[in-house]
Amino acid sequence: MPDTDSLLDSLASDAFKKVPQPTIERLSAYLQCVRGLRDEERATASSAEIARRTGINAAQLRKDLSYFGEFGTPGLGYDLRALERQLAHIMGLDEERDVLLIGAGNLGRALSSYTGFARRGFRIVAAFDLDAEKVGTPIGNIPVFHLQELSRRNAEFGAQVGLVAVPSNAAQEAVDALVAAGVKAILNFAPATIGVRPGITIRNVDLTSQMEILSFYLRHG
Amino acid sequence: MPDTDSLLDSLASDAFKKVPQPTIERLSAYLQCVRGLRDEERATASSAEIARRTGINAAQLRKDLSYFGEFGTPGLGYDLRALERQLAHIMGLDEERDVLLIGAGNLGRALSSYTGFARRGFRIVAAFDLDAEKVGTPIGNIPVFHLQELSRRNAEFGAQVGLVAVPSNAAQEAVDALVAAGVKAILNFAPATIGVRPGITIRNVDLTSQMEILSFYLRHG
Repeated sequence: MPDTDSLLDSLASDAFKKVPQPTIERLSAYLQCVRGLRDEERATASSAEIARRTGINAAQLRKDLSYFGEFGTPGLGYDLRALERQLAHIMGLDEERDVLLIGAGNLGRALSSYTGFARRGFRIVAAFDLDAEKVGTPIGNIPVFHLQELSRRNAEFGAQVGLVAVPSNAAQEAVDALVAAGVKAILNFAPATIGVRPGITIRNVDLTSQMEILSFYLRHG
Repeated sequence: MPDTDSLLDSLASDAFKKVPQPTIERLSAYLQCVRGLRDEERATASSAEIARRTGINAAQLRKDLSYFGEFGTPGLGYDLRALERQLAHIMGLDEERDVLLIGAGNLGRALSSYTGFARRGFRIVAAFDLDAEKVGTPIGNIPVFHLQELSRRNAEFGAQVGLVAVPSNAAQEAVDALVAAGVKAILNFAPATIGVRPGITIRNVDLTSQMEILSFYLRHG
């Protein structure tokens, strides 16, 4: 097997910018599938099996991986331990990331205790809110500061990831404050359309859309 | 324009079962885009414009819509009011849906006040929990019952949609209880792999995956 890590590291950042967003979303699905297979103590798997489990066809899988080098061995399939490590490396998951949380209400509290984040190396280091009653009372071990302190506090934390768990009408202000404080990647839970400048990545967790997809199956299932 | 609603209604349910899941997910994105255009008081749009706004190419858009009949007029584009109504009809959004919530903790409370659901006709009618301290104290207007009462209560509500907002180790039990009570479509927030029998639709809101995708852009952005 070629030394894929070196190949990846030698690729210019510009090459990664050409990777289509759906490919990146599928990489996350492949990684989840590989973790599941490894939890079952499997050592190898064919592209056909990964395709079947993820519901993504095998040709697409091979094409998606081909952006990043050569993976797998013809006739033997993928070495799952190697593939997990390579996918995690591609996704930037082999380092810990500090995360800022905006909004210390019910959703913010729920996110602060969401075990999935810590398991993948995402650590919420501080929360921020506009509500004077919430400021100063930690959520578990996470301190809660006033939103006005965001830039000053993040000069210390240096976090690049933010979670926005505020009402829709406060979401743009929260995002602007995160960007001003140096955050580069934001997960937004507010059902609102948020603008960011180029170079900032924002993903919207659109729960309404998820419900609409369920609704399709209810009608036609 | 052909009478697409009649065409849709005359299609056998089997025809809809052949629609690929990614198409259904994209329909939701098109619908969101059309709503946004209508909010801007636009009356028509070309497939190229919808493609640009959604990041999905125009050929894919036309192919996705072709499963459901003929839309748009060559040279004139799409009548947005008609397209919104047709997409909502396809997605089963032209009726109200009662929803059961499992888990009355922070996430459950956050979901119960999520305005996006009500706006699309999804109404949480009852919550269920195992914790005796939570049972009996309503969340807003939503009554909280013991999980053991789920089937008996839903004989009255007749809800077909469930939200699972419980810890990972309780998620399978919550899903099984919903299915036993007649629920057909479930949105699961627990970071756990859940099995359901054929005929039941479950979608996992995988927040970890969202963070992994952000991580890719942080590394390579």
